[in-house]
Amino acid sequence: MVDRPSPAECYRLLGPQGIGRIAFGTAAGLAVLPVNYAVTARTLVIRTGSGSLIAAHADGPVSFEADHFDLELGQGWSVLVRGEAHRVLQPGELRKLREECGLRPWPAGEHDLFVRIVPAQLTGRRIRSQ
Amino acid sequence: MVDRPSPAECYRLLGPQGIGRIAFGTAAGLAVLPVNYAVTARTLVIRTGSGSLIAAHADGPVSFEADHFDLELGQGWSVLVRGEAHRVLQPGELRKLREECGLRPWPAGEHDLFVRIVPAQLTGRRIRSQ
Repeated sequence: MVDRPSPAECYRLLGPQGIGRIAFGTAAGLAVLPVNYAVTARTLVIRTGSGSLIAAHADGPVSFEADHFDLELGQGWSVLVRGEAHRVLQPGELRKLREECGLRPWPAGEHDLFVRIVPAQLTGRRIRSQ
Repeated sequence: MVDRPSPAECYRLLGPQGIGRIAFGTAAGLAVLPVNYAVTARTLVIRTGSGSLIAAHADGPVSFEADHFDLELGQGWSVLVRGEAHRVLQPGELRKLREECGLRPWPAGEHDLFVRIVPAQLTGRRIRSQ
């Protein structure tokens, strides 16, 4: 059984934060890379290094996906966000994100770039095996 | 700490099967959708319904991503495959995939289309928080 959660339910599924994947076009084809994300004011915020591949594509159209599947229960969900990414540059906004959004990347090193994804389209699927 | 596993290690990380995401361009932007996959003969095979969005993009360039993160241990990996997808049409090949690759999609309904992704590029990341 597959059902299509509403945008409001999609936000509920995404939760306040988690691990998802950002996808964008590159000269070598589509890149799909895991990212920590936080949801704030109906936008997604991710944090990355200023020299990363994501940073090089931080202004423009992107897609974002998150999912969770429970193999034992045979159920799961996925949410696909299509939208525009842009670097967060405004100092007050940056300070607020650093303090409030709780994004702490794992690997050591500089992760000073915050990227905000403004959803243009939000679609979800919820799947149950029975 | 981030390291870059070799292509052989990427295949080991992907394992014989699992859940990943296929990504491709559509008129509405990039789609990123979860799929069950199996690895066979250094290609990825996924199974979908003949009327699905994936089926409509089953011949052409795609990317595929799989990852696993253990939040408690603070470690994880991701693998990104860029390649060409094509429908499996040859009857002997189809029979073999049906019998051997163990792909059983969860939602009820027809899933008669097998799509093979032939990797052109395989890159991975292994991340440890310490």
